Amino acid sequence: MPKTVDHAERREQLAAALWRLVVREGVEAASLRRVAAEAGWSVGSLRHYFDTQGELLRFAMELVVRRVTDRIAKLPPDPDRQAAAANLLHQFLPLDADRRAEMEVWLAFASRALVDPSLRELRDEAHAAVRGVCRRAVEPLGAPRPELEAERLHALVDGLAQHAIVAPDVTTPDRQRELLAAHLESLAQVREVR
Amino acid sequence: MPKTVDHAERREQLAAALWRLVVREGVEAASLRRVAAEAGWSVGSLRHYFDTQGELLRFAMELVVRRVTDRIAKLPPDPDRQAAAANLLHQFLPLDADRRAEMEVWLAFASRALVDPSLRELRDEAHAAVRGVCRRAVEPLGAPRPELEAERLHALVDGLAQHAIVAPDVTTPDRQRELLAAHLESLAQVREVR
Repeated sequence: MPKTVDHAERREQLAAALWRLVVREGVEAASLRRVAAEAGWSVGSLRHYFDTQGELLRFAMELVVRRVTDRIAKLPPDPDRQAAAANLLHQFLPLDADRRAEMEVWLAFASRALVDPSLRELRDEAHAAVRGVCRRAVEPLGAPRPELEAERLHALVDGLAQHAIVAPDVTTPDRQRELLAAHLESLAQVREVR
Repeated sequence: MPKTVDHAERREQLAAALWRLVVREGVEAASLRRVAAEAGWSVGSLRHYFDTQGELLRFAMELVVRRVTDRIAKLPPDPDRQAAAANLLHQFLPLDADRRAEMEVWLAFASRALVDPSLRELRDEAHAAVRGVCRRAVEPLGAPRPELEAERLHALVDGLAQHAIVAPDVTTPDRQRELLAAHLESLAQVREVR
């Protein structure tokens, strides 16, 4: 009987090894050679799955999208509208080691996509998906211009996440939560004023 | 008499050549070889000034900081506080080809700084300088928590600028101005409500 290889399982092993490496040493450590070593594979075996650093980075980004999507799907409902919105948006902020690693992958991926057109479709999908979650967070708050508010919230969240990476001592997890809560509170006020 | 070289003037020539290249072809085009060709220099001559791609990128970033600082210093006063704040913040948004090139340099530089510690001091200075301008924009608006509002505005501006690069057809210059104006208007409302 020929030896069969479960490619889906092999990819999951790879994903797990890649993720351990990124969380422990940052996205710059995730070279083909290092990921192969972490997974206990030869570089040659890894090249059956990814031939270039760009393809490996795409795999990492797909993993980030899946991780965030899974967390959002599992969020318990919250009757407080601002808390429910915050719960959604916290999934995009680097509030712990895993989410920080996700953000590093996203920044590296978005930066690479500026010079590698083959990555742009996934980048644009991820950007649009975050925008969609911002819409979902904003609409129950009842602000009068939901599409504009979703865009404003999306910019705020991406800017905050960027600052948390650039200046982690200032834009701490607590400060990220506080700034986001202040923003959501101001959206509720817009509704009350107008 | 020995031939003297005006290093300041030579650096200005280099800066001009680098800038033409970045505006025309993007920051990824700004290799040592391409910048030398654009300036009409040999790569060897250029290497008297920059030995590595990282040093060239640092020079480009210093140029961006100088360009933005000069524009802000020359802004005419505006008696309308929200308009005055918008005028300041428009200097950080990619609203035209030059500011788009500045933003591309900043993103490339910030991304490189994540893996090159020698670039972090300048990155942190630039980040702190933008924060300072956000403070200056926010304070006259009279919102009750100026430091928090400066941070929130800073995150919004950086997020908007990022979106304008990632999704220029959606986050157009007009849309960037509109979103920023809505944010400044909401800051003025906070004052009125409380």
